Amino acid sequence: MTKRAIHKKYANTAKESGFLPHIAYDSVIFGFDGETLKILILEYHNTKLFALPGGFVKEHESLNDAVRRGLHDRTGLENIYLEQFHTFGSLERFVPATIEQIMLNNGHLNSGEEHWLLERFISVGYYALINFNEVNPQPDTLSDRCEWYPVNELPPLMLDHDEMVQKALQTLRDNINKKLVGANLLPEKFTMKQYQQVYEAILGEKIRRTTFQRQILGLDILKRHEKQFLGKAHKAPFLYSFIK
Amino acid sequence: MTKRAIHKKYANTAKESGFLPHIAYDSVIFGFDGETLKILILEYHNTKLFALPGGFVKEHESLNDAVRRGLHDRTGLENIYLEQFHTFGSLERFVPATIEQIMLNNGHLNSGEEHWLLERFISVGYYALINFNEVNPQPDTLSDRCEWYPVNELPPLMLDHDEMVQKALQTLRDNINKKLVGANLLPEKFTMKQYQQVYEAILGEKIRRTTFQRQILGLDILKRHEKQFLGKAHKAPFLYSFIK
Repeated sequence: MTKRAIHKKYANTAKESGFLPHIAYDSVIFGFDGETLKILILEYHNTKLFALPGGFVKEHESLNDAVRRGLHDRTGLENIYLEQFHTFGSLERFVPATIEQIMLNNGHLNSGEEHWLLERFISVGYYALINFNEVNPQPDTLSDRCEWYPVNELPPLMLDHDEMVQKALQTLRDNINKKLVGANLLPEKFTMKQYQQVYEAILGEKIRRTTFQRQILGLDILKRHEKQFLGKAHKAPFLYSFIK
Repeated sequence: MTKRAIHKKYANTAKESGFLPHIAYDSVIFGFDGETLKILILEYHNTKLFALPGGFVKEHESLNDAVRRGLHDRTGLENIYLEQFHTFGSLERFVPATIEQIMLNNGHLNSGEEHWLLERFISVGYYALINFNEVNPQPDTLSDRCEWYPVNELPPLMLDHDEMVQKALQTLRDNINKKLVGANLLPEKFTMKQYQQVYEAILGEKIRRTTFQRQILGLDILKRHEKQFLGKAHKAPFLYSFIK
């Protein structure tokens, strides 16, 4: 018996794997590249199946720690702004054939074999807002790509992952002023135009520049920095940062 | 073997019981009695343990259906305004000794026996807003009381149920204008004073009557009804209802 076969045998049930059965999480990881709001999407080997990065909860690990661990494994980042937004528990999201296809294609399963990952899962959805430039996305053992896609150019996602993205976006919209969503997506210093682009991407609509500036400056959350007069810099836009 | 013993044996594992292991829900059921915002609380037999009403998800049942079923069993109500607010997955909430105490006191467990209810659970929190007068709370087989308590006079609750109540209240506060929370707690016709009491109970603070009225009337969501001039009725306050 090869080492891999032993490993497979060992992890055939949730108990053997050390994970809780039936409970998963999926994460909608938002990043802003300076122009466009993007989401991190996995592509599984040889399946044309696209999915949100997700994972499982260890028996002796809190749900939040499990999500932080998964996000760290996939992005290398720690201390990420992470928020739970909804738990998905429909019967329609239970499609064992899709999971079986992924696992067969990766040699993680023999045809007809029982496996704890083929059972029904209820998934807790989290969203994360991360600094695009500090991230080096890592595909996991089941996937061959982990890439950024603009929110309005996503490929069709498997299971109920499209619904998860829509619900995460709705939550961002509901919280756009309350929780300083922009502060976690923008670099430390940014232009008013960049801030407006983050807003527009989340709201899914254009805003008049004057309206946006009046509203944001009225919130009294921004500090404007002095321009540095080097060459053409006096024509450069003002830079802002958030008042801590 | 008595029928009861057979039943106990049969339900010793989640699989035998027909429920998913490790996944529970708990519900914060709000009602307004015309003066005070209240929550439905269970008291377990002979334990002095108080808890939110909760339950489990059947293998072939969606999470939402499970919560609706539990709420119907406990209140007799259908078509309830129900909203998921947070999923609780800390390690601290796993206190098997507390669950064992409840089950031993009710004869649902023999001392030292293993049982699926003694394993770790992650619980999905829902809140419900119900019409106080249409409800006849029913204790379940484990509890001897199911009663309304004012939100600011709750007994200490078991596990993380106090945290659940606070998080549900916070969610109500965040949504107080957006989702017409009052519409689900008030009778069809109500006075401005009753509406203000609902607001104050949710916000946990007093509001000036004039401020409240100006804000609410500004939202353009209320219809004012004609007074009926019978006896002293012209001294009675105006009644309002929500514009559908």
